[in-house]
Amino acid sequence: MKVEPKTLAGFTDLLPWEASKKEKLLLIFRDVFKSFGFVPIETPHLEYLDILVGDKEEEINKQIYSFKDKGERLVGLRFDLTVPLSRYVVAHYAELSFPFKRYAIGNVFRGEKPQKGRLREFTQCDFDIIGSFSPSADAEILEIASKALTKIGIAHKIKVSSREVMNSYINTIQGEDKIEVILRALDKFDKIGEEGVKKELKKIGLSESEVKELFVLISIKDSNWRNALEQAEELAKGRSQVFTAGIKRLYDILEIAESGGAKNLSIDFSIVRGLGYYTGFVFEALAVDYPDIGSICGGGRYDNLTDRFSTGKIEKEGKIKGAVGAAFGVDRILSVLKEQESQLLDSLPSLFMVLGEEVSFTLAHSVAARARELGAAVYIYPERASFKKQFKFADKAGARFVLILGEEEVSAGFYTLKDLKTGEQKKVGSIEEVVNIYRKNL
Amino acid sequence: MKVEPKTLAGFTDLLPWEASKKEKLLLIFRDVFKSFGFVPIETPHLEYLDILVGDKEEEINKQIYSFKDKGERLVGLRFDLTVPLSRYVVAHYAELSFPFKRYAIGNVFRGEKPQKGRLREFTQCDFDIIGSFSPSADAEILEIASKALTKIGIAHKIKVSSREVMNSYINTIQGEDKIEVILRALDKFDKIGEEGVKKELKKIGLSESEVKELFVLISIKDSNWRNALEQAEELAKGRSQVFTAGIKRLYDILEIAESGGAKNLSIDFSIVRGLGYYTGFVFEALAVDYPDIGSICGGGRYDNLTDRFSTGKIEKEGKIKGAVGAAFGVDRILSVLKEQESQLLDSLPSLFMVLGEEVSFTLAHSVAARARELGAAVYIYPERASFKKQFKFADKAGARFVLILGEEEVSAGFYTLKDLKTGEQKKVGSIEEVVNIYRKNL
Repeated sequence: MKVEPKTLAGFTDLLPWEASKKEKLLLIFRDVFKSFGFVPIETPHLEYLDILVGDKEEEINKQIYSFKDKGERLVGLRFDLTVPLSRYVVAHYAELSFPFKRYAIGNVFRGEKPQKGRLREFTQCDFDIIGSFSPSADAEILEIASKALTKIGIAHKIKVSSREVMNSYINTIQGEDKIEVILRALDKFDKIGEEGVKKELKKIGLSESEVKELFVLISIKDSNWRNALEQAEELAKGRSQVFTAGIKRLYDILEIAESGGAKNLSIDFSIVRGLGYYTGFVFEALAVDYPDIGSICGGGRYDNLTDRFSTGKIEKEGKIKGAVGAAFGVDRILSVLKEQESQLLDSLPSLFMVLGEEVSFTLAHSVAARARELGAAVYIYPERASFKKQFKFADKAGARFVLILGEEEVSAGFYTLKDLKTGEQKKVGSIEEVVNIYRKNL
Repeated sequence: MKVEPKTLAGFTDLLPWEASKKEKLLLIFRDVFKSFGFVPIETPHLEYLDILVGDKEEEINKQIYSFKDKGERLVGLRFDLTVPLSRYVVAHYAELSFPFKRYAIGNVFRGEKPQKGRLREFTQCDFDIIGSFSPSADAEILEIASKALTKIGIAHKIKVSSREVMNSYINTIQGEDKIEVILRALDKFDKIGEEGVKKELKKIGLSESEVKELFVLISIKDSNWRNALEQAEELAKGRSQVFTAGIKRLYDILEIAESGGAKNLSIDFSIVRGLGYYTGFVFEALAVDYPDIGSICGGGRYDNLTDRFSTGKIEKEGKIKGAVGAAFGVDRILSVLKEQESQLLDSLPSLFMVLGEEVSFTLAHSVAARARELGAAVYIYPERASFKKQFKFADKAGARFVLILGEEEVSAGFYTLKDLKTGEQKKVGSIEEVVNIYRKNL
């Protein structure tokens, strides 16, 4: 019986040129992570459902792919890499050193309505520091974000805010119990705009003047973050110690991050990044030339990471309190690079070997083996085919060089190398020379 | 409510040093694949169940993690990367060029009884050539297997057999209908040994002399594959043309593979590699010094790959007939490397920065940024802590060098670099020099 070769809605195949770009992008991220002394970890794709589901996270629960396995265990596919991280650090507490700087790259699953640019399975690329409250840790996360985006050639800006600052400011306007609903309204800024948010705030019960007061903070958007923080500090005067301390901490973080090479930092208190989760500074990075693609990297401080899992002993030692981290939006970054027509991640052109019909595979494979030893990527067309067919294939595969090994070449002892870009074709005496030319033109 | 941070039986976390080794191993594999002109692809972890389940594959069906998703679709987690490959090449037939050389690295899921060294989620690393019947394609698979294992420093032997040869030979002894049960018995060689297999064969209905005849072929184990194939050819005389052709083809494959650099090839007709699936040559690679770990790479030719999915048009053009490929056993290879105490995949030691209590993070981050630009991996301890505590951490983290940035260093303008391996400590004038020393000692 024939089966239709379809994939599930929201799940997708990557074609070779897409998978190849993604692989190279992740390699660059890994290099940057490692240059900051971060180490990789891996956790399973499938976990006990109660590990994944938090108390209040009904929204998330609805999105989790969950089922009963054959042993009647209630299990689920991970929907992010942060919940598994929190389980991980508690489970392996004794084997790890804290502060623990790690990265994790893997696929996650969410049963959301699939939309353009939003799949049900997608790749996350997270980096976090667990077990530190220091602004040095916060700054390092910003440095990595900026350095990696710089390295892949995306002009970016990084908008920084702080939950500490926002919470304490809101607290001076309205009661503590309103913080969450107000943040929820602010989080819709991108979708419904300033007027929409204001309307929502009034619905919640804020007066015209309270909304206005709230917007004084949110509207501070000086491109110089030092100026922005000065304006915020003015606002803080006599208002709340927590607010002042929050501003001071933001200043420390940004100053350290900037000396560590983070670029294009700015303050934008309208950045909220979801609910509940974050406890300190938060940020989002955007591609300057493609703002519609949305945040391409985001994160912040979330100090209560391990609360659901940690045991008495760990809590007492307090070692894995304090967490800060972020994630790159791999698919969105690939979209930006595509829009930019970046060639950074393009495949290396291989040396494509074209064989005369009488030339043995034995000879071809031994020549190819030598070329590979010298550092070339060599493609041998495995079938017996005409020169024309082989050239056509090489061209379609995007090869830069064709190495012709025809009957004449073999009997006279030379190679013909054709540059498909320039059309130039020449006789070359040795495979060493062939690889030299190929490598020089990569 | 506290939740116990446990993982499901058969699922496991990787600690940083394990994940780091695995990452480096996969990088070496990728480099080898690319050097042969192979390209990566990706397919989803989750597929429609009827895509995954074949007609006769009840055994596999029982092992599949399957469930109904929230849209009442019957879905399953992939149990290998080959079934998704077959769906992929049919679905993307028009976008790909054939012969199509691809690799895929990803996790697969099998609800088997978890045992030592056999998990329910594990990583597969596959490489295949689709759309070629050529011995050049078969040989390339052997070359890649041997080259990658050589590159990671595992002494290996590659045992080659052929389904063509085995099937036609069995056919001359017993009827065609017995081939499958006989192969099934042979496949147990590793588990029940020669005597056990002989007993099974008799149970199937083979006479003493038929078993003896079967074992004439299986017992050919000359370490020189040319001699082994000569002996097999002798056996073939007057027996069957298919048998003779199968031996000739094996000869071609091994000769091409050897000229392409494949090492330690031998003939072993007891290699069966499961049922139904393979149609031509098959092979298994073993670590010479750790045979108990079992096959660390295996595969062969399986020409009917796309039958379940292919449509009339594709079948008529016949372009994606012919397939050959293999997979590395990532976890087993990591076990071998661990047994060998190989340091190939060990982490690069980072430059660990130790800060005086009065030295600012701002300064530390700017020095680190410069060192990273020069190519060092730098770890900054993010907390304020004593020299003693920071040194202890550096030591535990396996750092080779500690860069001391104390109050004295900052005011006098130098760096102190300590080599944790030799205990040597010296004053260094510039960060360039620090990185030079660090890089020279990687």
